[in-house]
This record gives sequence, structure tokens and C-alpha cells, in this order.
Amino acid sequence: MTIRTLNVNLGERGYTIRMGRSLADALTVPGDGVTALVISDSHVAPLYLDACRARLTELGYRVYAATVPAGEGSKSLACAGDLYGAAVEAGLDRGSVVVALGGGVVGDLAGFVAGTFLRGIRFIQAPTSLLAMVDSSVGGKTGINLPRGKNLVGVFHQPVEVAMAMDALATLPDREYRSGLAEVIKYGVIWDATFFERLERETARLTARDAALLEEIVERSCAIKAEVVGLDERESGVRAILNFGHTFGHAVENAAGYGRLLHGEAVAIGMAYAARLSAAARGLPADEAERIVALLAAVGLPTRPSDVAGLSDWGALRATMSTDKKSRGRTPRFVLAERLGAVVFNCEVDETVLAHVYAGL
Amino acid sequence: MTIRTLNVNLGERGYTIRMGRSLADALTVPGDGVTALVISDSHVAPLYLDACRARLTELGYRVYAATVPAGEGSKSLACAGDLYGAAVEAGLDRGSVVVALGGGVVGDLAGFVAGTFLRGIRFIQAPTSLLAMVDSSVGGKTGINLPRGKNLVGVFHQPVEVAMAMDALATLPDREYRSGLAEVIKYGVIWDATFFERLERETARLTARDAALLEEIVERSCAIKAEVVGLDERESGVRAILNFGHTFGHAVENAAGYGRLLHGEAVAIGMAYAARLSAAARGLPADEAERIVALLAAVGLPTRPSDVAGLSDWGALRATMSTDKKSRGRTPRFVLAERLGAVVFNCEVDETVLAHVYAGL
Repeated sequence: MTIRTLNVNLGERGYTIRMGRSLADALTVPGDGVTALVISDSHVAPLYLDACRARLTELGYRVYAATVPAGEGSKSLACAGDLYGAAVEAGLDRGSVVVALGGGVVGDLAGFVAGTFLRGIRFIQAPTSLLAMVDSSVGGKTGINLPRGKNLVGVFHQPVEVAMAMDALATLPDREYRSGLAEVIKYGVIWDATFFERLERETARLTARDAALLEEIVERSCAIKAEVVGLDERESGVRAILNFGHTFGHAVENAAGYGRLLHGEAVAIGMAYAARLSAAARGLPADEAERIVALLAAVGLPTRPSDVAGLSDWGALRATMSTDKKSRGRTPRFVLAERLGAVVFNCEVDETVLAHVYAGL
Repeated sequence: MTIRTLNVNLGERGYTIRMGRSLADALTVPGDGVTALVISDSHVAPLYLDACRARLTELGYRVYAATVPAGEGSKSLACAGDLYGAAVEAGLDRGSVVVALGGGVVGDLAGFVAGTFLRGIRFIQAPTSLLAMVDSSVGGKTGINLPRGKNLVGVFHQPVEVAMAMDALATLPDREYRSGLAEVIKYGVIWDATFFERLERETARLTARDAALLEEIVERSCAIKAEVVGLDERESGVRAILNFGHTFGHAVENAAGYGRLLHGEAVAIGMAYAARLSAAARGLPADEAERIVALLAAVGLPTRPSDVAGLSDWGALRATMSTDKKSRGRTPRFVLAERLGAVVFNCEVDETVLAHVYAGL
């Protein structure tokens, strides 16, 4: 493939997203003898750490690596503490670089460590999952979880480069891959009805991981994310639309217990809920709401809490939404669609409607 | 006293420092029904939490409080974790405010929690120690310690107001008070020889905690800090001069074991070292170096590592300096004085000179 590049326009914090076949094409920040700490996880490191190390060495870095257990459980304060220890061991200073090699968990965790070690050092996102490529690696949100909720602790810290080795998508476990498609579908819903329609038409190639299609899909998704982030880096306004499906999705993810559901699976259930809430409370045509639910199901994603064995009842899910970051004074706020490609944010919805739509899922 | 105010000019992140007799004069940010979480410690809370709570209630806040054990040991990841739990319990949302009521430890810790909870919420500094008033409450540096070094983890997060209740200085334990004077003297050395000379002349009133003198001293110290921070918020350059005495000071503090030495005591030893290093390596007249050491001693501060029982030898102190945040590739960097009121930063010094000056302390 040719290298595809996209700029995230954030002034002095701006950077380039580079899509290549491997990190040899995608990762380009010169090392000049500084130290790099690669943070990866137990699934990704055996597959890609050697290649990453080789590329960084070629670029002139002194390379150290730290590996965390795969899974959401590593997005913890304890794990961040271990990584701070590794950073001290490796002798990281203010000129050093952290490289996040992995999916969304690794990116969020490593980004938080990079954003807080020595009050913030440079970091490179090297996402290996579809979800990390199209969503979490772009835009500078980093975070860790608390027992009471996801991403309740974090900082905004932009990477200096997002280096995507597209070949990594071929080795992604099926559930992980489908989880990433939830965020891809989200971009169609919130920003681009034509993109949504293309996803509807290309479901077969999409689930078959057609490489040429994936390049275009990832590029378009990143372009939308970069555009939204460029408008509102710190989510004082429009950036909130990226949370479509996330208010209820986070509650589902939390109630299921971290690690039971992948992020994209929980978001898919949250998007199905948000779609029908949009129809009930914001005038989204009912057939468009059903097309959203149908596309999620067509790529193999869950759309109902009852798709997840043992998930808590409405009362527990509703209570969890009160501690969501997007709440004000325990009242949850939603992103709702008015039509495909056009959403509004900061919506509060009547309690009876919230419960009624849940009952109809 | 009349209320004294100073502006910290940081554009949209700018804020006002207000000095009054009590928080009733000094703390003014309207509450409008939002939640405030006051973070204090076991020494300060019994003295000032009720007054702080009353003032916040008067301003319209719903007030919650969390208290940590007094002392440097609370600047830990574990303590931050407890406070995140308290923040969730209190139902803090993105509109809420954290109030740091205490000395430097509380300010750094509460500021870090405010800067990372929900990726950053507003906070108010209400410093009760001299050190926090003249140094740590102004400028937005927050941080916690790692076992391997002080302030190795943190974020830049500016307060929305610094509210100084000057009456608190009367109840400060003697060691704490003297510790704060180390940073006051620092401002004279790095920025204002006239101020330094005034401190030399007024040593008696200073150690007697003359309230009128203290107002002027605190105001001048804050004005210098605000000016330096306004020039270079994130320490890419000149802000580094505020670290005069801190390279060796942090090593001494670390080697003594957290909690043995107060920060200002360690900085005093570090300033005595930096003064003589400046004479040896940067042309500071020897008599000016000795005046710096003499003023520190005159207000009752330690100036030699041997003033601290059981402190490690040079080898251990030197090794600790290699992991200082200000190091590059394990080479420590110093702020050195060329004359009283004029310093340079980012100085590297020959190993033999470093050891020789240490031997002469």
C-alpha cells in the first residue's frame, strides 16, 4: 500500500497519523539517541514487540520495554504505578518517548503514564487493534479506570505521532475486530450518512477484513475523528458527539464487570439504546434507528443487554449512569441523533422515557 | 489588613492570588450550587476545615471533605487513589471544584487529583503554610512522589483562585515556618537582590513572624513567582530558575527518607550547595555565596548535609541526582547564581567540582 497520512490540526500540539503496512513505514519520529519505553501487553508483545524494537533502534532510540497483562484490568492505578517504576528504571527523562504498542487499553494506559510522568513527556501511539486505530489513538484522551467507573481518571495528552501498521488487523481476534467496527459505525451515525450507507452495502467485505476496504474505512474514520478533535480538543462542546452510545455503553460495560464485554461490544449496545432513545425523544425516524441497530447486528455485535448473560437490571444500569463523566449532578447526558449523520449532545431525557426505551430493547 | 491581590497572567488559564486575614476575605469563587470537595490533612483540618466549610457554604457550594494524614508520605499514588474514591462518593462532576486546604503536600496532592479526575476539574488553592503561600500554591505544578524520587508524577493544572488566609501563619509550627523562609530567600537570590538585602536586615522581625512584614514578604515572593510563571508556564525555559537549590535539595530530601526533612530544610541545604557551586563554577563572588549561606542559617535553617543525622554519603546523593526530573541522560542540571538576583539555568558541572564543593560544605 501507499502510505496514507492525515493531519490532526491542533496548532503546536498537532501531529500526523500515518498508515502503512508495518511500523517500518508508519513510525518516523527520529530518535537521536534518546530513550524510548515501549509499553505493550501480553497479547501484542509476542507478535509485534520485536518489530517495534527494531524500528525504534533503526530510528536511533535506546529501547526499553514493559509489558502489562492484556485486558481492561490493566487500566488501573496499580498498573500505572508499575509502569512509573519501569520508567524510572529505564532512566526516562524529559526528552524521552513512551511508545504505546497495542489496543485501546495499552494506548489509554501508556498515554496516561506519558502524560503524568515528569508532568508529561512525549509519546507515540502505535495502535494494533481496529478500535485503537479508529478511535482511542487519535485525539489525546488518556485514562485509567476506578472500581466505580471507566476512565474516571486521566489527562488530555496528545501523541507526537500515530503510527498504524495495518497488517496488525489481520492477526486481530474476531471479537476484537468486531468491537472496533462499533466505533466505525458510530462515525457514520454522528457525521456522515454516506459513509454509513457504504458500511451497510459492504458488510460482507467488512466482516471478511478486506484489506483495501479497511484502509479506506480506517482513513475515513480517523479523518472524522481528527476533524471533530480539531474543532474542540478538550471536549468543551462538539467533541462530545464522539460519545454517541457511550453513556449507556459505559454503564453496561461497568455492570457486566470489566473484562466481560469488550469496549466496542458495550458501545454497540449503547448505540442501539441511543438510537431508539433518539427515535423516542429527538425525532429520529424509526426506520433510521432500526437501520443503526441492524448494521450493528449485521457485523456480529450485540445490541441488547440481554445478549450478555447475567447483566444487571435497569435500576443498577441507571444508577451507574449517574457517575458517568458526562453527568451533571447525577443526571446523565446523551448524544442523540436527529437523522443519520446529524446528532446533538448534552441531551437530558425524562426518566420514564429512559426506562421505557430500555424495556423495549 | 486590606485585601492584597495579584494576577497570574496566563491568558485563559490566568487567575488571582488573594491575601486576606481569613478565608472569608480571601476565597471568592461563586459556588452556584456545585459540589466542592475540600482536601485537607490531619494537622490543618482540626484548625481550619470548619471555617473553610462555612465560607464555601456561604458561597453556595455543597461541601464534602476528605482528610489525609499530615506529611510527605501522603503524596503517594495510594493516597491519590483514596481521594479519587472520595471524589466519586461525593458525586463530583465536571462542574465541581476541589479545594486544597493545607500546606504544600496537600496542594500538590489535591492539585494532582483535580488535574486528573475526569481529565481535570477546577480547583482552588487555600494554602495555610508559608511554603505553600510563597511557592507551591502558585504556578500550577502538581505532583506526587514515587519511591524513587519526589514529584516524579504530576500534571500542570492551574488553580482558578489562590486564597490565602494570612492568619494561618500564626499557628504554623516553627519548623514549618522556617522551612517556608527557604523559598522566600530563594526569590531574593534568583530575582531581586534588594529583596535579599531586606531579608538580611529584617531577620529579627522575620523570625518573630511580624504580621505586617509577612504580608509584604509573601506578596513580593508571589509577585516574583507569578512573573516567572507568566513568562514560561510549562518550564520550557526560564521557569527552571525557580529550581535554585532544588537539584541537590531533592537528593538530600530523598536520601534522608521522606518525612525526615521538610522540603524547605532540604532546599536550604541545596541552596547552600548551589551557592558554593556557583562560586566554584560560575563566578559568583565568594562573599555573596557566604551571605546566602549565612542568611539561611540566620533564620534557623540547616545548610549542611551533616546537619541531618545519618544522611547518606556523597556517592548516594550523587546517584540520586541522576534520577532528578531536571536531569538529561542522568547528568544533573543546576541553577547557578552569577551574582545576587541573577541566575542561569541548565548548567552542567564537572564531576570533580561537584564532589569538591560537597566536601567543603
